[in-house]
Amino acid sequence: MIRTLVAAALLSTASALPAQTIPSPERIGLLRDAALESDQYAWDITEGLTTEVGPRLAGTEAEARARDWAVRKLTAMGFANARIEPFDMPVWTRGEESAEIIEPFPQKMVVAALGNSASTGPQGVSGEVVAFDSVDALRAAPDSAVRGKIVFIDHRMMANQDGSGYGQFGAPRRQGPTLASQKGAIAIVIRSVGTDHDRLPHTGVMSFDNGAKPIPAGALSVPDAEQMMRIIKRGKPVTMRLVLVSKSVGTRQSGNVIAEVPGRDPSLPPILVSGHLDSWDQGTGAIDDASGVAIAAAAAKRIMDAGRPLRTIRIVWFGAEEVGLFGGLDYRARHGKEPHHALMESDFGADRIYRVNSKLGTARRAEAEAIGKALAPLGIVTGSFEQAEGSDIGPMLADGMPGVGLSQDGTRYFDIHHTANDTLDKVDPAQLRQNVAAWTAVLAVLSGGIEEPKRSKRR
Amino acid sequence: MIRTLVAAALLSTASALPAQTIPSPERIGLLRDAALESDQYAWDITEGLTTEVGPRLAGTEAEARARDWAVRKLTAMGFANARIEPFDMPVWTRGEESAEIIEPFPQKMVVAALGNSASTGPQGVSGEVVAFDSVDALRAAPDSAVRGKIVFIDHRMMANQDGSGYGQFGAPRRQGPTLASQKGAIAIVIRSVGTDHDRLPHTGVMSFDNGAKPIPAGALSVPDAEQMMRIIKRGKPVTMRLVLVSKSVGTRQSGNVIAEVPGRDPSLPPILVSGHLDSWDQGTGAIDDASGVAIAAAAAKRIMDAGRPLRTIRIVWFGAEEVGLFGGLDYRARHGKEPHHALMESDFGADRIYRVNSKLGTARRAEAEAIGKALAPLGIVTGSFEQAEGSDIGPMLADGMPGVGLSQDGTRYFDIHHTANDTLDKVDPAQLRQNVAAWTAVLAVLSGGIEEPKRSKRR
Repeated sequence: MIRTLVAAALLSTASALPAQTIPSPERIGLLRDAALESDQYAWDITEGLTTEVGPRLAGTEAEARARDWAVRKLTAMGFANARIEPFDMPVWTRGEESAEIIEPFPQKMVVAALGNSASTGPQGVSGEVVAFDSVDALRAAPDSAVRGKIVFIDHRMMANQDGSGYGQFGAPRRQGPTLASQKGAIAIVIRSVGTDHDRLPHTGVMSFDNGAKPIPAGALSVPDAEQMMRIIKRGKPVTMRLVLVSKSVGTRQSGNVIAEVPGRDPSLPPILVSGHLDSWDQGTGAIDDASGVAIAAAAAKRIMDAGRPLRTIRIVWFGAEEVGLFGGLDYRARHGKEPHHALMESDFGADRIYRVNSKLGTARRAEAEAIGKALAPLGIVTGSFEQAEGSDIGPMLADGMPGVGLSQDGTRYFDIHHTANDTLDKVDPAQLRQNVAAWTAVLAVLSGGIEEPKRSKRR
Repeated sequence: MIRTLVAAALLSTASALPAQTIPSPERIGLLRDAALESDQYAWDITEGLTTEVGPRLAGTEAEARARDWAVRKLTAMGFANARIEPFDMPVWTRGEESAEIIEPFPQKMVVAALGNSASTGPQGVSGEVVAFDSVDALRAAPDSAVRGKIVFIDHRMMANQDGSGYGQFGAPRRQGPTLASQKGAIAIVIRSVGTDHDRLPHTGVMSFDNGAKPIPAGALSVPDAEQMMRIIKRGKPVTMRLVLVSKSVGTRQSGNVIAEVPGRDPSLPPILVSGHLDSWDQGTGAIDDASGVAIAAAAAKRIMDAGRPLRTIRIVWFGAEEVGLFGGLDYRARHGKEPHHALMESDFGADRIYRVNSKLGTARRAEAEAIGKALAPLGIVTGSFEQAEGSDIGPMLADGMPGVGLSQDGTRYFDIHHTANDTLDKVDPAQLRQNVAAWTAVLAVLSGGIEEPKRSKRR
């Protein structure tokens, strides 16, 4: 009964969009379920990139090696026209880093510099710690309470499936350094924006806004931040020594890696599937975002294996996402005026997809609903028809481009995010397969129809 | 019915040991269950020691601060005669440490020196990596395959409730360095002897035996060891740079901290309850072994709060356990000829006790069985009557001293053991309470009878 209604809906869609068809639910289901059974492609890319390149900080020689690896890989997989679109960007790098409590209870702490931190110099800085339990508390403090001191900001982030804590509880990282600098602090350390209890700090980018002078800025691991609060609650003055030998190395080259599954009708707007190739420097960027580029490419490859889609599928592995969306903004500057059928990005780990949102417009509601039907057998809930999400593609979605957002379960994500713990062992192959299955189903719906290869071509 | 039988058994015990009595099952049950309801004492000690002292490597000034803290704490809790029995020992300290793959896939790895590692010097050592999947494979290799290279040893340790993997899969750490040195290796790195997947290496002590020349010896974190194997399996020569600036600083002072609950009959052999005060230097030693010293002292304190035991309960917080059982051996040298009613040690974390073993001798079987009955309501299984366990007390147990062993669930233990992750947040207060309840019940049985305080004394 339900299937009959869907078929009716698809027929009406087909008449509204004469140049294309949506494959039958049966065919989409076969493509989807085959992806559930196979580790091919996505695991191979995730394992290869994290092993053969490892960490790949934006603008460094490691990211350049990652681009070369990516072009070779995408070419070897049979995608067309694998290429690099280079761009320039300012590059910051991490150096030696350490922290210790000097008084009242001498002990080392584990710290990581935040992206764009000023350097303490190798000799470090020492000072009294002044603690706040939120950015708002720091904002409300008189300058005299902060001047000449090391600011510490705590918070209470907890794990949520949708990752929604990152916005609110990430404020210490995003706003804290500017506020601390404006009030005359000599440095700032924050509780890591993370939900784990490992002695592995979470880095992440920040910037000094409104003309604030850069100061050293770091994140303590969550256990160290909790230790700091226990020490502070003893009521004695706490002094700390902080060493963060960071460096701004000037302008360097980054780039986006692009390749295609050529569509039968090159005049039609392409479907863009993406992730980002760069990673933070401490881990090998397995969940952020080797698995993302792998999921996007694996789904495109599975469509290519099934036949020729009407529309071109464009794979984009963005560069320099972590440090300021440079890759997404460069793509937008070059291609943002060209029509795209839909933008998609995978950048929230490799755990199961639980929801699909889309923003395809009212005229394409049947297409959006067909996506929902194709995903329901994977346990995926249909969410909004009026929004999609993605980091690099975010500005283009905000420009009004259509998009589909497959929401991944982020419960574990901020345990690992931006830490040395972001390594291959954190990727669950079964959930990775579910991601590829979902992406494959969406691409099948959006493909405009997949022409099966002629038997003679195979011989 | 069961209770009647127990009472009969206790009566027969009482007649066999006229100088003492076992409190009634009801009284033991009340003491045991009260401990289940209270965070007092054990959490306070664990939190205080890990916060106010932090890491406390054997023989360092940090361990000396821990001893001073311990004497103050035990005195403040009302124990008698809190004191230090000092001893001298050789001290090794960690310095700068780093590792990186140079070829074929340049990337940093996370390493920690093993205790007693030689130093690479600040410039480090570089060499080709030769990998083995076990100590046996290294032993079987010709010297020519190892000479001038950096040995890597993998293994397959998995988590077990009883921690039994540590013996077998700890061989790379214990035997690997000597074997590698004897075959002419320039250094050795092992897969951490741990069951987690965090980028936090597990240190631990080792020694160079049979005249083997000390070489630099470190442990890679488990994810790094797995990465190393993936890289090696690509089949290209792998070169590595290793920096381990360790130092043997000569003879320094350590010591055991001892205090008592004085018994009504000081002529009777004491019950020894213990843990170790020192920790490795990377974490704050919460599960290894702040919680252990806390459990032992908290149970003794709960008996003291209930009244005066017939027998003295002696609390011993051993020094310098991690680096070679120096505290246990010093206690044995001083007191090993004196009779003890039973030896007990807590040194396997703070997770629930699941089994009791004892070695009290056939003449004291009723006492051992009473312990089993007192623990069964906590879900604790009665195991052997012919063995007990403990690290520092191990040599004295081997000498034939009686003992009781409360086995903790070690499923999580080797995730954290000897890493920077050994911090307070890893201690589960509910399971810590169950430990104290079990220890309290055992001490009540062993006490020889607890004389309740006279009401007039309380006023």
